[in-house]
Amino acid sequence: MRIYLAGPDVFLPNAGEIAAAKKDVCARYGAIGVFPTDPIADSAADAAQERFLEIYLRNEAHIRQCDALIANLTPFRGPSADAGTVYELGFMRALGRPVAGYANTTRHFAARTRDFLGAAAQQRPDGGWVDGEGLSLEDFGRHDNLMIDGGIAAAGGSLITRDVPEHLRWQDLGAFEACVATLMQPLRGAA
Amino acid sequence: MRIYLAGPDVFLPNAGEIAAAKKDVCARYGAIGVFPTDPIADSAADAAQERFLEIYLRNEAHIRQCDALIANLTPFRGPSADAGTVYELGFMRALGRPVAGYANTTRHFAARTRDFLGAAAQQRPDGGWVDGEGLSLEDFGRHDNLMIDGGIAAAGGSLITRDVPEHLRWQDLGAFEACVATLMQPLRGAA
Repeated sequence: MRIYLAGPDVFLPNAGEIAAAKKDVCARYGAIGVFPTDPIADSAADAAQERFLEIYLRNEAHIRQCDALIANLTPFRGPSADAGTVYELGFMRALGRPVAGYANTTRHFAARTRDFLGAAAQQRPDGGWVDGEGLSLEDFGRHDNLMIDGGIAAAGGSLITRDVPEHLRWQDLGAFEACVATLMQPLRGAA
Repeated sequence: MRIYLAGPDVFLPNAGEIAAAKKDVCARYGAIGVFPTDPIADSAADAAQERFLEIYLRNEAHIRQCDALIANLTPFRGPSADAGTVYELGFMRALGRPVAGYANTTRHFAARTRDFLGAAAQQRPDGGWVDGEGLSLEDFGRHDNLMIDGGIAAAGGSLITRDVPEHLRWQDLGAFEACVATLMQPLRGAA
């Protein structure tokens, strides 16, 4: 099984190390991990005139060639996961293939959004919260926006969250490994 | 043509008004606008045990039943667009149908991310920027994460950005209407 490794990990100073470590975890479970920056032979990407589109087309081709996707949903520069990662999760869900996600925090979306808004967050008489412009805060007691949690649930996948020390949240691969294990479990059970 | 109207508009205090206004714009161009909160007859959604999953399955069913999608990509609580909207954009792109996006700001992603990070953003000797933890800032001079701009470009769609007064950025539908016009143009030309 080829697993696309979606996440903001590509922005890390040690992205190469994390890519290798994630691939090692996958290999231990009999899977092939595919990192977004892995080279690819793809004529559409080669033909792109602009660098951003070349990278996009490579990532899209990688996803199409993978059997499953694991998304690093650790919140990234705001209350939600990295936008590129969320796009890729939606893309793979639409292809109908297995998806899983993990985050190195157990704090819920509504609480993180209130943290982010600070004093601008206001509670309404009915108990719901709004931001400084009156836009409501989503609160279903879930990890992130319901399209993320819902997409993984609809696909029958796992969303695994764990608390790790703040300074290790981009490096700790415990929850990632748990995702690999759940994706590979049916195959190993059948072997 | 049925157009799914993705965006954080669902969180607005006047979400119903905006939904009606967007549908009116679509109707003027001969299209049917479908708002995420529109009711739907869908057995999977009805059978969902949990409210977040019921909403997810309804939105997913709406997207599958639409011919195109317009995403409101105005930055939402951070440098990027609303996570649910980005998920839906990736989903529709994977279905291979037309997508378009708009934002009521012309400020680029890298500049918005630096605004967000403040003093934590640091410029490297090579000119690139990193955050306080050393994670790099994406900078291709684009509107948002390259998966968003790239997905729309790969689909041959339009990403229309305009500056409007800050307090009108959730209400102004000028850029939205421009998206409807570009989606409907080929059909009207052929009629």
